[in-house]
Amino acid sequence: MNWPTATEVDLHDLRITDPLIGKCRELVREVTLPYQWEALNDRIPEVTPSHSIDNFRIAANRANGEFYGTVFQDSDVAKWLEAVAWLLCETSNPELERTADDLIELIAAAQCGDGYLNTYFTVKAPGERWSNLSECHELYCAGHLIEAGVAFFQATGKRRLLEVVCRLADHIAVVFGPERYQLHGYDGHPEIELALIRLYEATLEQRYLTLANYFVEQRGTEPHFYDIEYEKRSRQRKAHVEPWMVRDKAYSQAHLPVSEQRTATGHAVRFVYLMTGVAHLARLLQNEQQRQACLRLWQNMVQRQIYITGGIGSQSAGEAFSSDYDLPNDTAYAESCASIGLMMFARRMLEMEADSRYADVMERALYNTVLGSIALDGRHFFYANPLEIHPKTLRSNRIYSHVSPIRQPWFGCACCPPNIARLFTSIGHYIYTPHSDALYVNLYVGNSVSLPVGEHTLRLRMSGNYPWEDQVEVAVESEQPITHTLALRLPEWCSAPEARLNGEPVNCESHKGYLHIHRTWRQGDRCKLQLPMKARRVYGHPQLHHLAGKVAIQRGPLIYCLEEADNGPELHNIWLDADSQFSLVEGKGLFAGKILLRADGFRLQHSLSEEAPLYHYDKVPGQRQPQRLTFIPWFSRANRGEGEMRIWINDW
Amino acid sequence: MNWPTATEVDLHDLRITDPLIGKCRELVREVTLPYQWEALNDRIPEVTPSHSIDNFRIAANRANGEFYGTVFQDSDVAKWLEAVAWLLCETSNPELERTADDLIELIAAAQCGDGYLNTYFTVKAPGERWSNLSECHELYCAGHLIEAGVAFFQATGKRRLLEVVCRLADHIAVVFGPERYQLHGYDGHPEIELALIRLYEATLEQRYLTLANYFVEQRGTEPHFYDIEYEKRSRQRKAHVEPWMVRDKAYSQAHLPVSEQRTATGHAVRFVYLMTGVAHLARLLQNEQQRQACLRLWQNMVQRQIYITGGIGSQSAGEAFSSDYDLPNDTAYAESCASIGLMMFARRMLEMEADSRYADVMERALYNTVLGSIALDGRHFFYANPLEIHPKTLRSNRIYSHVSPIRQPWFGCACCPPNIARLFTSIGHYIYTPHSDALYVNLYVGNSVSLPVGEHTLRLRMSGNYPWEDQVEVAVESEQPITHTLALRLPEWCSAPEARLNGEPVNCESHKGYLHIHRTWRQGDRCKLQLPMKARRVYGHPQLHHLAGKVAIQRGPLIYCLEEADNGPELHNIWLDADSQFSLVEGKGLFAGKILLRADGFRLQHSLSEEAPLYHYDKVPGQRQPQRLTFIPWFSRANRGEGEMRIWINDW
Repeated sequence: MNWPTATEVDLHDLRITDPLIGKCRELVREVTLPYQWEALNDRIPEVTPSHSIDNFRIAANRANGEFYGTVFQDSDVAKWLEAVAWLLCETSNPELERTADDLIELIAAAQCGDGYLNTYFTVKAPGERWSNLSECHELYCAGHLIEAGVAFFQATGKRRLLEVVCRLADHIAVVFGPERYQLHGYDGHPEIELALIRLYEATLEQRYLTLANYFVEQRGTEPHFYDIEYEKRSRQRKAHVEPWMVRDKAYSQAHLPVSEQRTATGHAVRFVYLMTGVAHLARLLQNEQQRQACLRLWQNMVQRQIYITGGIGSQSAGEAFSSDYDLPNDTAYAESCASIGLMMFARRMLEMEADSRYADVMERALYNTVLGSIALDGRHFFYANPLEIHPKTLRSNRIYSHVSPIRQPWFGCACCPPNIARLFTSIGHYIYTPHSDALYVNLYVGNSVSLPVGEHTLRLRMSGNYPWEDQVEVAVESEQPITHTLALRLPEWCSAPEARLNGEPVNCESHKGYLHIHRTWRQGDRCKLQLPMKARRVYGHPQLHHLAGKVAIQRGPLIYCLEEADNGPELHNIWLDADSQFSLVEGKGLFAGKILLRADGFRLQHSLSEEAPLYHYDKVPGQRQPQRLTFIPWFSRANRGEGEMRIWINDW
Repeated sequence: MNWPTATEVDLHDLRITDPLIGKCRELVREVTLPYQWEALNDRIPEVTPSHSIDNFRIAANRANGEFYGTVFQDSDVAKWLEAVAWLLCETSNPELERTADDLIELIAAAQCGDGYLNTYFTVKAPGERWSNLSECHELYCAGHLIEAGVAFFQATGKRRLLEVVCRLADHIAVVFGPERYQLHGYDGHPEIELALIRLYEATLEQRYLTLANYFVEQRGTEPHFYDIEYEKRSRQRKAHVEPWMVRDKAYSQAHLPVSEQRTATGHAVRFVYLMTGVAHLARLLQNEQQRQACLRLWQNMVQRQIYITGGIGSQSAGEAFSSDYDLPNDTAYAESCASIGLMMFARRMLEMEADSRYADVMERALYNTVLGSIALDGRHFFYANPLEIHPKTLRSNRIYSHVSPIRQPWFGCACCPPNIARLFTSIGHYIYTPHSDALYVNLYVGNSVSLPVGEHTLRLRMSGNYPWEDQVEVAVESEQPITHTLALRLPEWCSAPEARLNGEPVNCESHKGYLHIHRTWRQGDRCKLQLPMKARRVYGHPQLHHLAGKVAIQRGPLIYCLEEADNGPELHNIWLDADSQFSLVEGKGLFAGKILLRADGFRLQHSLSEEAPLYHYDKVPGQRQPQRLTFIPWFSRANRGEGEMRIWINDW
């Protein structure tokens, strides 16, 4: 194995100019983050209370009251702060920065003398610190604070929060570790691992990397830490019934050491958070066993357990993976956070090995599940993202209790909204993977960027109108000539990509899915990629039993769907014609700037009376009527109120 | 409304001779009932403990120990006893009768001085009698004991248990009723209503009918009894969190007075038990409002919410109905007890109005869900009866947590096994509905019967090999000529029935689905019904969104299915040819005596490597290969170990 070095783009040096993602990012800046700040402060009367800022106030002795919320309520604040930090890289925003600074002072004031920092335990259960790692998210919350601290330091150069989280991490390093006097544990919800690695990268303090590795390697070993701590709680009469999170160790990927795990299992967000850390660690430590685990588990996930939308976690129970080839459409969980975590995992895999299959999955998740998780108004969010909605049955059949037909303003467990904000403000980290041998271009999100290449600075401007139009241009804007390799991803959905360099055709031979162009780049050099975006039919693997006889439509990276608003109700009675051509239609109104698709199909028309029986002998009770079908990009669904929706439709 | 009188066949005067149902009944007598007696006595080491006989021993002070089991554990014993009683009508069985007599003495010994009888409250919570009707099944258990008492009296003439249950009913009549000093409540699980009506019919004591009517009419009225009793428990600090059964009043059909209910709602077993009582009561009291409720709710159930198998209750949560047209195949609950209760409801509707649509549903439930709920060995039972099984995913996806791919030896909640036994030993009650104007023949289960008609006794022998062969013969064996009407049901599944009387064709005009033949019947008269049993394709109502593009196969009353054992795995990749003819095949081995069906179809064959992607562009990854398909009667599924099964298959 040739272990690559990889760096990340400094977000101060990147401007998003993309029409689609850029607009979404603008929405996050202008609407979503201010809105979320109000929500975290409980100043939006109609939404579920958060109380998370108040929890910090109480912990800091600046207010009286009781802790309220989930055990991981602190993490919503941390993710919001991290989202703000990444935003501040791009444009200064003194008011937002002041709000963040004040929040950081509040967080600092809530820190205990020994570095401990968690409002749930400080306020509500001070005697129970570190006694229930399997359930209580203590290190998970710490991880998110650490990520925020690193981001805020990187964004502003201010060390205040970084110092707070270093003290927190140092405290954790005292409590956890291999020594006899330490706890030999790890968190039920992975996150601390990936956060400590970021902290290591920001501080170059080896001990944080060591601790991250300890948590990864300790996970799932015997005697099992969850059992040990549960037994301890039982002895102290703090636990009476073994919690299911202790019993079901696969739920938190703690059923086996990571190196022995064979399939993507358990809570999907936990899985991808864990593997994001493992992949990052494997590269930094050049640990082949960890790398093999990443390859194997990635492979199982994308070859057996991922939705066409880049969603993962096919069941509501445990927000979890099911088993190979079990991907129901209507009861899917496919949490927004899981697809965000999947992008994080893909990013770390790309840093380990620049293979476009990771970026393909990253793109699928971004343009479908993640982009669709936020409403066009920036104030409503999806938590679960099933591929089929039949509103009438959602309220009556509890297999759909996790499904909402439209995006919601907030959640009792509000992990998704700030995570979505954080993803869009840090999207620059996903566009490029700077390896020493080449600059890998993963996503065609329009931007201008400056990157160090040796002693020089490579300046690029990427433009186009992706994913609506099939041309992408990468223009070199550096004043000095720079010899380097640009590696442009050739998307898996594109069967006939073409490339031109300054007008001349370039052989599109790919190396692990990237077109490598090595040369001395000069100002004005232009790479043009032509990525023909035919609307394509997609069919499921024959073992996907929910997809037999069904077809989905994809154009570029976008998955399309039928909605009741365009096609009428009873979408299950619609068939797509076998030989139907797709025509592209410019969207209007809500869909302005978007491409819709039209195609011929038919509908089973029926005119049964109210008294018609449920079952009919000998022939189908209805007639086939031609119908012109309208498909919209799935990410833009559910912006017109409740209605039926489906991605997988009957194939003629 | 012309209120009919209706009687029931005296099971002493009926012999089941049917090859299929008779064999099942024999199995129940020879295997199931002895087996269940051992299970109730905890003498079968490998099955879930019952402890229900021990509970009676402890309550009777004949043993020491703690109560164990559900609050309704007593009802398993009562149903077993009732099943035995009906069996004793047909053939004497001194050993079984002695066992029953001893059990009755035990039950009598467990009765309290004031008539109260319930081992859970007597042993475990003596201070909490009648304090939690919404959850605790106290009247439900009483109802099953009353049914057993009536049955044992009718079977043997012995009054011992009848007297016990009369004392119990009299105690209940003191506790419940409209007076200020009485409880104005009713049970969360209906059953007492139908049982008190049976007790009224056995004793002709009007007060039992009055009490049944009180329970029916009080149900769902405001102020709500569940709230009142919950508030009382809260005041006494016996309840701290409002139980969901109190909150979700529709679960137990207590959200509205029965007369205001519009749709079949909540726990399916409770619904049909309630409506069995209401229908019986409506006829006896000539209560038009109750009758209208029956008609309306029956209609909603069969026109919107019933499976093709006669299963009801389409979701596991609350073992409940969902909403109109929501009938998923794989996550269906369709409890065995619910289809038994449906037969009970249909029977009482037939007594109110001899319309074959009730008998059609009764037959559908009997020959599919009920007959399939017991294994060929008589010792294994289905609780839930989904229409599609994909064993690989059952264990990994918790939307299937209620589904077992094969029948189980017992259950923690063991309501189904003794209910199945009771249904088969009392099947004679369902075959005929004796109205004053005619003897209605609902089911073509072979039997010999004697019935009083005026001063005379009509003796009939029904034979054939239903539902395998299409001829049914009803022969008159009375020695005296009797003038009466025989009303033979013309099944809804049969499009061209023919009838002959002593060889002469009879005009098959039906009145409410029955062919009425009025004459003076003489010994040797023979009615022959020819009910052509073409295998027929069945299609779902277009609003049944799970059935779009799917077809099911029915022959006679039997629903057929594909099993992996005959057709290989991946049944979702099988299509039925549009023009395929069905051929009938005599079953062998396990299927001896049964008719299987064969038809042409095709299978999507694929030879994808382990590494194949999940999604394929442009064309289906596989080829269509012709395949000869074998269909088995659905009731005989899952007798060859675990495997895929489906009723609704892809329609070409």
